[in-house]
Amino acid sequence: MSQPSVKTRVAFQGERGAFSEEAAVKLLGEEIQLVPRPTFESLFVAINEDAADYVLAPVENSLAGSVHRSYDLLLESSLHISAEVIIPIRHHLIACAGASFDEIKTVESHPVALAQCERFFAAHPQLQRIATEDTAGSVAKVVERGDPTRAAIAGIRAAKIYGGAVLRENLEDHAENYTRFVLLTSSTSVDSGADKLSLVMKLPHKSGALHRALQPFADRGIDLLKIESRPIKGRPWEYHFYLDLQASTNDEKVIKALAELGERAAEVRVLGCYQAGSR
Amino acid sequence: MSQPSVKTRVAFQGERGAFSEEAAVKLLGEEIQLVPRPTFESLFVAINEDAADYVLAPVENSLAGSVHRSYDLLLESSLHISAEVIIPIRHHLIACAGASFDEIKTVESHPVALAQCERFFAAHPQLQRIATEDTAGSVAKVVERGDPTRAAIAGIRAAKIYGGAVLRENLEDHAENYTRFVLLTSSTSVDSGADKLSLVMKLPHKSGALHRALQPFADRGIDLLKIESRPIKGRPWEYHFYLDLQASTNDEKVIKALAELGERAAEVRVLGCYQAGSR
Repeated sequence: MSQPSVKTRVAFQGERGAFSEEAAVKLLGEEIQLVPRPTFESLFVAINEDAADYVLAPVENSLAGSVHRSYDLLLESSLHISAEVIIPIRHHLIACAGASFDEIKTVESHPVALAQCERFFAAHPQLQRIATEDTAGSVAKVVERGDPTRAAIAGIRAAKIYGGAVLRENLEDHAENYTRFVLLTSSTSVDSGADKLSLVMKLPHKSGALHRALQPFADRGIDLLKIESRPIKGRPWEYHFYLDLQASTNDEKVIKALAELGERAAEVRVLGCYQAGSR
Repeated sequence: MSQPSVKTRVAFQGERGAFSEEAAVKLLGEEIQLVPRPTFESLFVAINEDAADYVLAPVENSLAGSVHRSYDLLLESSLHISAEVIIPIRHHLIACAGASFDEIKTVESHPVALAQCERFFAAHPQLQRIATEDTAGSVAKVVERGDPTRAAIAGIRAAKIYGGAVLRENLEDHAENYTRFVLLTSSTSVDSGADKLSLVMKLPHKSGALHRALQPFADRGIDLLKIESRPIKGRPWEYHFYLDLQASTNDEKVIKALAELGERAAEVRVLGCYQAGSR
């Protein structure tokens, strides 16, 4: 009896063919087991439920900004960031096989995808936009129904998986459209090539608290790549600050900076130390 | 011939009875002319189109976080913040006159309002949620149709304006639920009671740039109340930083801090200096 091959299971939010799936494959290759999860909530518990070994979550789009649901759920979980991957977002108009552009009446997709194709809709005012739960799922529905008046907006991977016909390519208003994802695991191990560090902190109610919190990094020439504040529920106008730093916990001066920060912040949690993705 | 009374015209996003309307009345009194605008885009051009003297825009909810659409449109406009107002958000279940709770099958409202009443929906699983464009507009529709199986979630003002029946009060999961609004005008004048300053800045690509930008304020004991980053379109992973400071441009040390910041940041724009709202 031969041993069944054990594939790494990677959970992502959305249906097969989603941009998240494209990101998972870019990061880990085609030889993984893809675990689609319908919601962000179900995505973040996939490891705990032993449905997946990894969770891949979107954290930022270069046009729309941070994905706050991911930040909030990451904070509630005890998962760690072990890698990052960035993919370009290319939106295509996809319909069932045999459909032609002139027949299309409705275009369905996730509201963010629809909003990123404003110029296309302005040029084709006859098309009615329909907001749906996700991009790839819209392609699945449009192909399944076989109605040649319906089209969806999604990535090329969705067209391939569901056998949809690409009627128009690259509908996005801005070519510089990228989404950044993080790979989450329950392990805290840090790769030797790690060069990026993410942390979340709560600050004391003192004048200059944020300036003081950034000082240990500024003093050592450690670059701050991103800062994000999220409200603390039940404590109006108080925030968690999320920091991305160009730093590795394999570096002694980073360890010292984190120790200094620990004395200045009310709470600090390192979310992960990993290799930065490239676009 | 008597002079017609000229009321101050205040534009807000949504329909009559919206939380924004409640905020406008809290800030300026009932003797204003309310100018409802269907979208954020149409709201921010209301002064330019001479449809309003002021624009009232939501900037933050204490649970959901910043209203990014407002930040992005404020940056694109040349408007200034002249005042701030904070209102508690209380969600009520509102139906047509004569309806009873046991008959209700569907509940419609803005997705954020629905999401803030999770506990209520968990306790009443028979109720189907329907996402709509806004809270008050949902009440208008429910009352107009007169269908006793339909209810909406909105503030008390919407129930009063459209003659809806309040079936359940205070559905919100968290009592500490507030929304913060800013009043925008084309004038740059600063009240003598101003104690809060909002600015937006772009930083140079240098290690420690944010730390250096906060230093002029930290050195003078000027408190940072909020920091928010928003992506710059077409420049992936570059950001505008929005700062709220406890400061007035009537104060010499604030002027000096701003001058110092001007030398450290690539761009600085003071969005307004005004009296902080209280909750």
